[in-house]
Amino acid sequence: MQAYQIQQSTDRTALSLTERPIPQPARDQVLIRVRAVSLNARDIQIMHGHYPAAIAFPLVPVSDGVGEVVAVGHAVQRVKVGDRVAGIFRQKWIAGNASPAIRQSTLGGPLDGLLQEYAVLNEEGVVLVPAHLSDEEAATLPCAATTAWSELFTRGQLKAGETVLVQGTGGVSLFALQFAKLAGARVIVTSRSDEKLERVRALGADEVINTEKTPAWAARVRDLTAGYGADYLIEVVGDLAQSLQAVAYGGQISLVGFLGQRIAKIDIAQAIVGMVRLQGANAGHREAFEAMNRAIALHHLHPVIDQTFSFEDAPEAFRYMEQGGYLGKICIRL
Amino acid sequence: MQAYQIQQSTDRTALSLTERPIPQPARDQVLIRVRAVSLNARDIQIMHGHYPAAIAFPLVPVSDGVGEVVAVGHAVQRVKVGDRVAGIFRQKWIAGNASPAIRQSTLGGPLDGLLQEYAVLNEEGVVLVPAHLSDEEAATLPCAATTAWSELFTRGQLKAGETVLVQGTGGVSLFALQFAKLAGARVIVTSRSDEKLERVRALGADEVINTEKTPAWAARVRDLTAGYGADYLIEVVGDLAQSLQAVAYGGQISLVGFLGQRIAKIDIAQAIVGMVRLQGANAGHREAFEAMNRAIALHHLHPVIDQTFSFEDAPEAFRYMEQGGYLGKICIRL
Amino acid sequence: MQAYQIQQSTDRTALSLTERPIPQPARDQVLIRVRAVSLNARDIQIMHGHYPAAIAFPLVPVSDGVGEVVAVGHAVQRVKVGDRVAGIFRQKWIAGNASPAIRQSTLGGPLDGLLQEYAVLNEEGVVLVPAHLSDEEAATLPCAATTAWSELFTRGQLKAGETVLVQGTGGVSLFALQFAKLAGARVIVTSRSDEKLERVRALGADEVINTEKTPAWAARVRDLTAGYGADYLIEVVGDLAQSLQAVAYGGQISLVGFLGQRIAKIDIAQAIVGMVRLQGANAGHREAFEAMNRAIALHHLHPVIDQTFSFEDAPEAFRYMEQGGYLGKICIRL
Amino acid sequence: MQAYQIQQSTDRTALSLTERPIPQPARDQVLIRVRAVSLNARDIQIMHGHYPAAIAFPLVPVSDGVGEVVAVGHAVQRVKVGDRVAGIFRQKWIAGNASPAIRQSTLGGPLDGLLQEYAVLNEEGVVLVPAHLSDEEAATLPCAATTAWSELFTRGQLKAGETVLVQGTGGVSLFALQFAKLAGARVIVTSRSDEKLERVRALGADEVINTEKTPAWAARVRDLTAGYGADYLIEVVGDLAQSLQAVAYGGQISLVGFLGQRIAKIDIAQAIVGMVRLQGANAGHREAFEAMNRAIALHHLHPVIDQTFSFEDAPEAFRYMEQGGYLGKICIRL
Repeated sequence: MQAYQIQQSTDRTALSLTERPIPQPARDQVLIRVRAVSLNARDIQIMHGHYPAAIAFPLVPVSDGVGEVVAVGHAVQRVKVGDRVAGIFRQKWIAGNASPAIRQSTLGGPLDGLLQEYAVLNEEGVVLVPAHLSDEEAATLPCAATTAWSELFTRGQLKAGETVLVQGTGGVSLFALQFAKLAGARVIVTSRSDEKLERVRALGADEVINTEKTPAWAARVRDLTAGYGADYLIEVVGDLAQSLQAVAYGGQISLVGFLGQRIAKIDIAQAIVGMVRLQGANAGHREAFEAMNRAIALHHLHPVIDQTFSFEDAPEAFRYMEQGGYLGKICIRL
Repeated sequence: MQAYQIQQSTDRTALSLTERPIPQPARDQVLIRVRAVSLNARDIQIMHGHYPAAIAFPLVPVSDGVGEVVAVGHAVQRVKVGDRVAGIFRQKWIAGNASPAIRQSTLGGPLDGLLQEYAVLNEEGVVLVPAHLSDEEAATLPCAATTAWSELFTRGQLKAGETVLVQGTGGVSLFALQFAKLAGARVIVTSRSDEKLERVRALGADEVINTEKTPAWAARVRDLTAGYGADYLIEVVGDLAQSLQAVAYGGQISLVGFLGQRIAKIDIAQAIVGMVRLQGANAGHREAFEAMNRAIALHHLHPVIDQTFSFEDAPEAFRYMEQGGYLGKICIRL
Repeated sequence: MQAYQIQQSTDRTALSLTERPIPQPARDQVLIRVRAVSLNARDIQIMHGHYPAAIAFPLVPVSDGVGEVVAVGHAVQRVKVGDRVAGIFRQKWIAGNASPAIRQSTLGGPLDGLLQEYAVLNEEGVVLVPAHLSDEEAATLPCAATTAWSELFTRGQLKAGETVLVQGTGGVSLFALQFAKLAGARVIVTSRSDEKLERVRALGADEVINTEKTPAWAARVRDLTAGYGADYLIEVVGDLAQSLQAVAYGGQISLVGFLGQRIAKIDIAQAIVGMVRLQGANAGHREAFEAMNRAIALHHLHPVIDQTFSFEDAPEAFRYMEQGGYLGKICIRL
Repeated sequence: MQAYQIQQSTDRTALSLTERPIPQPARDQVLIRVRAVSLNARDIQIMHGHYPAAIAFPLVPVSDGVGEVVAVGHAVQRVKVGDRVAGIFRQKWIAGNASPAIRQSTLGGPLDGLLQEYAVLNEEGVVLVPAHLSDEEAATLPCAATTAWSELFTRGQLKAGETVLVQGTGGVSLFALQFAKLAGARVIVTSRSDEKLERVRALGADEVINTEKTPAWAARVRDLTAGYGADYLIEVVGDLAQSLQAVAYGGQISLVGFLGQRIAKIDIAQAIVGMVRLQGANAGHREAFEAMNRAIALHHLHPVIDQTFSFEDAPEAFRYMEQGGYLGKICIRL
């Protein structure tokens, strides 16, 4: 079979196609014929050596993917041949709290990922995906979607009628928008692009703010919420000063990314006065993934895909993502 | 001003119209011109002396109502003259856990209720109601709606994609149906009347079961949920044997009423095997009431009203409720 | 190696010693040299065919045990040769909610248990045990102790200063007493034996009630708690009438057993008035087991052992348990 | 009666003794004969105009105090004449979430505080205090103790066996130490003074770190916790870099103060990798206060008092606090 490998990081050209034997599933493992994968910023960071954790190379990249079960070990009970499954982002995070050990079980680094024709995973590390989704759509769920779901419903407890502020139009942000609407919440989206804001309006955003035109966007959030602020805030930029002003008393800021700056300043007095909670957001467990899938299936929700590349054009998909400017997930079809 | 009083319980004719002086609000109280009230089974029980708690008479009945603030004490800050407010069912239940002392602060018994032209309440005991609601609609919220909201979102944590089973078409049940749909859940409703089941379909019920035609309705619930059962169950009958079979592993049964039987039997082994949680449901606090109002306002949700009576016909409204057969709340307009 | 088997249930003589080959650990499994096991009522029920779930025979009985890791598969990371570990009661319950599928992974039925010289378990299905414990003491933890911990700290949220009522002196009850004291709670124990009550006093019980002498023991609980009742109640008898009177407003009753009667009656009105929560208690997950072990280790807590039998006398241990009258766990040393 | 007033902030000499009439309790109020008060850093900040919120002057300072109920309004039910009560820090925070409106109900600013011989409070704004405490000891509870309790048990869920890191020896820190020990946790305390560290050892601290001698104290915390870090961290300095390294995976950092720096830097990537939660800590509600009192009473716990001043020497008490160097609360006896 064919597999892409990153031979060593710090060099994009390291993504090379290699021939590997098709692996065989052990007792409690499943063999998957990979059908589609989708990219996350993390996959790019790992390829360039920018990921803040030790990764050994060569490595098959890409954490998120979906495939068909084509063989199972004799003790496998959770799935059967013919099922369509996604791999869990952290293979050993079943439920409850994560840990450094669980982080070591992440697909696409440190463990080999899914940018290969076949992959073997433990039966505990896969979930069935909603039937109405295309392979590409299903491939977008493991990392970004589960992160959004976890912040709103597992670590948070978003209720109908509450307000969610979503920064930007990246993967986690778009899923947070879609899930929040599903749950009856009100959603405000910020972006520097009117064109993207128009797109998210079509996806259900109740209000949008162009932060290029309105740099003091927190004040606008206060205006839109009768002074209260947003109950939940998906923070991807790192400008915590505005976020601390935009969040409601006792609200939750989920730290998802740091596109603007990695070292952020926070006014501790402000955090104290508002009893704000800031929390590092980092994927979700299988229980959350399966709960999310139930909601996606019930509502026939479709993830947003920007573009799909062929397996041969996988390096092109990475380059496309690096250029930025996309809206929705970038997929590769096998 | 005019007020209805129950002179003594155990006798329906005890509901009599009397003349009282208009009360004056103290420092932290508000005077409300009552506009509409709505009835609960509890109001009937109190009138007939069937309520399982000590109540002193004479008593102005009816816990749930809405009115206009027409005067405020000098220290009042939460509301102002002209605001439209509902009384909180338990006047002192602001948030957190209830207590026997908090139960003593219930409108319509032991405290005087709202079936009177004017009423004085503490400013902490009222909430603003959504602007899109009629007075009658707003009057339906304090007891039944807040109970439904609390069981699903305060004591429970209902998420999009989960299944709620609602027994019957009483006040709490219809609100549970409406709120669960708002939150993206799937709802199954049981009733002995096809006509009522048709009505709840129109309100959004995903599935309905006629328990007269299908006495072993739990099996049907299992069928409808791929064997899993309902994650949340609003129990109003008291036939816990079926409910314990219909509820999902680890699911929650909210004990709201006992139309069928007050002394229920439970197979403890079954509760243990399924890790089921059964909990007495009994109203909700102000924080839940206000959260619910935000959801109702955002979604322009309308409570279901069966019929509205005039103030003069209030005794007729009680009789109408006693006869049963209604669907939705019974209101009295002042 | 030697292993005990139940050839078929419904007959005690079915417990017979057989010779089996020492199993070999697969890739992600560990081979354990069993050192000690401890019995639960469940083990007896399974032997006699009284357990309310389908079990296939022959079966190696006994869920709870501890042993030394003597070999590991090449992919094992959680433990290493030489570690002393206990098996998790439900091998696949890592954290979060259980499920029927997870129930199928229970040691001692349906899966083979630990009354054998060697056993192979998945690395995810074992936990390190506190160093200060003897093998027998460590062997008591998987089922009873984890159930007690889960009810108080995972499903409940017991805090210092609260009151726990513990019925009887069985395994779960004694652990609940010890853990509640560790957490700064006040503990009341009921029993029909003054001798046993004296024993639990020595273990830290603040108050004791002989329910033979005081059949209306709920009133006594009210007296002892300034009228409030117990915040948490470990219910093993099935006499819910008294328990519903003894529990505090909004309190939690954990249904652990049904020594008195399996079909219990509950007054629904009473459950509603007191906003009581009754929940089927049924073991706990690995995350709870490990949290419990940290507490046991920090406080050098010792489980209560009634008697230890040799491997040859295993059938005698079962008979001893059936006779009743013991206080603390019954162990078998290999 | 005599009352201290701050005539205007920004000037310490503003603390002046004035004569006021004894207030009379309205319908639902209680009149308290103040017996003792205790100081918080906040009281000093308000006097000097450094408090980050608008306060109107003249103002009777000091939020925390205890007194005897000497008269009650006719509708009062929670307490009676002769009871010894403390005022709640935020008079309207009964339970659940706080809000900007609730913040406006804080004693000692914006509302008049308790550095006066008599005070009138709403019956909902007082709690009974444990009988074994002296007046001075009871006076220390409303702000600092309730904050510590809330962070560990209301917003957090500290369990026996977990590790709490407490920075310094201020009011919140000492209470966090005492409460964590009560709950069976392990406690590490940091300070720049060996003398103070010796004192906290006597109060039960399991481990101590002198951060002057060990500036990279986070590494020491890792050493002391087998690499895991502290599950809960009471942060009063503002050096979040070390705190983020010292906290366990998924741990909670409670932002209580900013003695070192108000504008803190956080490495967002680090917060994400460790799934850390940082939350502004800001007092607690009445339900937490009462739960805490139950624990204090059950364990006969005594708050740590550094020094007590007479009412006449109140300005001296403020000066003493400003000088720093104390360990425990500073009280004033009336």
